[in-house]
Amino acid sequence: MNESKIPYKIYLSEEEMPTTWYNMRADMKIKPAPLLNPGTGQPVTLDELSAIFCRELGKQELDNDTREFPIPQEILDFYKMYRPSPLVRAYCLEKKLDTPAHIYYKFEGNNTSGSHKLNSAIAQAYYAKQQDLKGVTTETGAGQWGTALSMACAYLGLDCQVYMVKISYEQKPFRREVMRTYGAAVTPSPSNTTAVGRKILEEFPGTNGSLGCAISEAVEAAVSQEGYRYVLGSVLNQVLLHQSIIGQETYAACKKYDIKPDVIIGCAGGGSNLGGLISPFMGEKLRGEADYDFIAVEPASCPSFTRGTFAYDFCDTGHVTPLAKMYTLGSDFIPSANHAGGLRYHGMSPVLSELYDEGYMRAVSYEQTSVFAAAEEFARVEGILPAPESSHAIRCAVDEALKCKETGEEKNIIFGLTGTGYFDLYAYQQFNDGTMSDYIPSDEEIEKYKANLPKI
Amino acid sequence: MNESKIPYKIYLSEEEMPTTWYNMRADMKIKPAPLLNPGTGQPVTLDELSAIFCRELGKQELDNDTREFPIPQEILDFYKMYRPSPLVRAYCLEKKLDTPAHIYYKFEGNNTSGSHKLNSAIAQAYYAKQQDLKGVTTETGAGQWGTALSMACAYLGLDCQVYMVKISYEQKPFRREVMRTYGAAVTPSPSNTTAVGRKILEEFPGTNGSLGCAISEAVEAAVSQEGYRYVLGSVLNQVLLHQSIIGQETYAACKKYDIKPDVIIGCAGGGSNLGGLISPFMGEKLRGEADYDFIAVEPASCPSFTRGTFAYDFCDTGHVTPLAKMYTLGSDFIPSANHAGGLRYHGMSPVLSELYDEGYMRAVSYEQTSVFAAAEEFARVEGILPAPESSHAIRCAVDEALKCKETGEEKNIIFGLTGTGYFDLYAYQQFNDGTMSDYIPSDEEIEKYKANLPKI
Repeated sequence: MNESKIPYKIYLSEEEMPTTWYNMRADMKIKPAPLLNPGTGQPVTLDELSAIFCRELGKQELDNDTREFPIPQEILDFYKMYRPSPLVRAYCLEKKLDTPAHIYYKFEGNNTSGSHKLNSAIAQAYYAKQQDLKGVTTETGAGQWGTALSMACAYLGLDCQVYMVKISYEQKPFRREVMRTYGAAVTPSPSNTTAVGRKILEEFPGTNGSLGCAISEAVEAAVSQEGYRYVLGSVLNQVLLHQSIIGQETYAACKKYDIKPDVIIGCAGGGSNLGGLISPFMGEKLRGEADYDFIAVEPASCPSFTRGTFAYDFCDTGHVTPLAKMYTLGSDFIPSANHAGGLRYHGMSPVLSELYDEGYMRAVSYEQTSVFAAAEEFARVEGILPAPESSHAIRCAVDEALKCKETGEEKNIIFGLTGTGYFDLYAYQQFNDGTMSDYIPSDEEIEKYKANLPKI
Repeated sequence: MNESKIPYKIYLSEEEMPTTWYNMRADMKIKPAPLLNPGTGQPVTLDELSAIFCRELGKQELDNDTREFPIPQEILDFYKMYRPSPLVRAYCLEKKLDTPAHIYYKFEGNNTSGSHKLNSAIAQAYYAKQQDLKGVTTETGAGQWGTALSMACAYLGLDCQVYMVKISYEQKPFRREVMRTYGAAVTPSPSNTTAVGRKILEEFPGTNGSLGCAISEAVEAAVSQEGYRYVLGSVLNQVLLHQSIIGQETYAACKKYDIKPDVIIGCAGGGSNLGGLISPFMGEKLRGEADYDFIAVEPASCPSFTRGTFAYDFCDTGHVTPLAKMYTLGSDFIPSANHAGGLRYHGMSPVLSELYDEGYMRAVSYEQTSVFAAAEEFARVEGILPAPESSHAIRCAVDEALKCKETGEEKNIIFGLTGTGYFDLYAYQQFNDGTMSDYIPSDEEIEKYKANLPKI
């Protein structure tokens, strides 16, 4: 297709929107390692999972074989409220960089949760509703996931209890307030409302909290209340499945305009956005039908892929969850307090971990001041104020485009712009004031937490 | 067209996007009264206007005859970055209200400025750039306009100086920070940086500021610096012209899906959004080709239309601007400090004022707690957290839809959802906490300011 015909923003029509989630695991020759019951050392069963998760979600978690999952109509209807998200051609950024590369971004920020998290939140809330539950519990770090879940629960009439990492709770009162506007109960974590929270507070008084702590509390809250289950916004196989809607739309948009991506880039905290974005493309790569250069981008201050270990580890700090085999920094790892935004999880999706380990994708890490510099440059030319998380992908896409400038290659670069930074202006202020600093954990620090990995 | 074929969100394709602004004044039999030079009492000339505004914008301000203005290509390109905005069918809200009415909203919040203000900001910045200016000055209240202008200036490489109403500057540090991220200089108003600011501070020490004060300062800053002009985000004829892009798109979307609006609703502070939204529809009404029920919605605490006087008045508190004939509460009027959000301007667009006076549209006012109740209800079913300003239109649309429920009428109701409330969570918090109060000025208060109107 004539390149000049590619619009600034590609929106699929309702008829063109995908109606299935794609499950990468079905095309993986080596499947991701199963979750283990830490008590028995054996793979967790559906019944065990169903004590924590909705049963249908437990099934999705364990299903390594079904390739396509039809999306229930009620979820499709909800998707129509904010999807399709646009695939945007970054004409202005290309011009600014003077690069022959063609840069596209899949923009997931045009909904009130401000990120892609809503794609899985509505799915998980839907299955909870189907199971006649009263409500769900969860944790949130930067706040996107908690906001998304509170929106989904408000829509379906479910109770929503959110454990919010304490430092975020304090630094982001407005995030908290959005959740409250959607009717959610928000508790700073660690808290005195759970046994595991009390234990953590006793051991580490004055702690800022972490995602790992908040997960422990949310799981405890779910299993100790009748009619509640726990939901998680990333890492899990089920979440990557739901997030495949991002990739399915991107794939359809590329087909429609005959765009052949060379490089596909996503930020990676627990892997939900990256896994979702690359899904159908990775499927082609796994089946040997096409090749793509997939890049995971993570913060240098929380480098799970680039400096972590591929091993079984707990998903939480309080060690109440199953064990997952994943790239991990150790479940006690807490990123430096100077680290802004999300992407602060110690582990990584087991699916992506396996693919990374097999060499199907690569990973890079960036320090946060260079990430914010890219964010500000992007905001000024493309008009969108990006989330700090998403800006890791921007940084990498810009660098890839600049490489193309050197080599003269007209690569098609696609990156995931997962969300907006409206609730991250404290961090932008630090950057604008020149008071933002970088932090890279020392080798000793990495080794210290590695030594604490469970012996399996 | 079969109703079931109307998608949740109507997006025009790039080819379907309007390429002209429509000037309502061309179809008005009685033209809006001219701006007057307060010194001479005579209509201001283009030369006089050009001392304050860019010359091309001055021409647009005075042009009551040209019906269609071609939109310059560079502005069309910028529009493509965030437009078309969707015309959304509020299926979920309809279901919640159990109304036979069909509710649509034109959603202008999907851009980083968070509102429709960007439509005119890029136009005004473009003409400033064309005139080889160094930069522009302006005021901002709630912050949308300042953010929009700073984005437009960053895109075109212009300096941007924003006088921000002091109470907003203090309550909304993050709004300030977005502007800074886009490179703007932001000063709380009234300030010591201008003569008029110093005078106001002397007269009213401890004042929270007002749009009227901030306009005075911005105008002074523009005329006292070489290579600068003043720009304004509402009220002016030129702004309504640029904002007609909202109505042009809405009109095209309605034609495409054979939707015949019965009621068209917009919030009204200075009139930029309402005037833009109704433009082509009002054109039909003015030409006798169709009839529509147009409703302006304003806060009960700043009721320019519903309790103001149609008279010549200053556009600012410091009396440095020309006089405009408009519905006004008097240029000394400052809304109660408890009033959240924008829509706090004492006057109203001269074009809309004339149309209102002739009975082409009607106006209603609402107290803010009822507005926030509608906002929260809307957020929960439609997923979007609305700006307090936009929520005035939601309140009215809901009430009109409930009337349809009583009468059984299947009216098509369109309202302008001008923006998002991500920076208004302090107000949402007050509402959620039950500490938000209402304020209606007394008749004595209204009469007091009315008595101060200039004698023309």
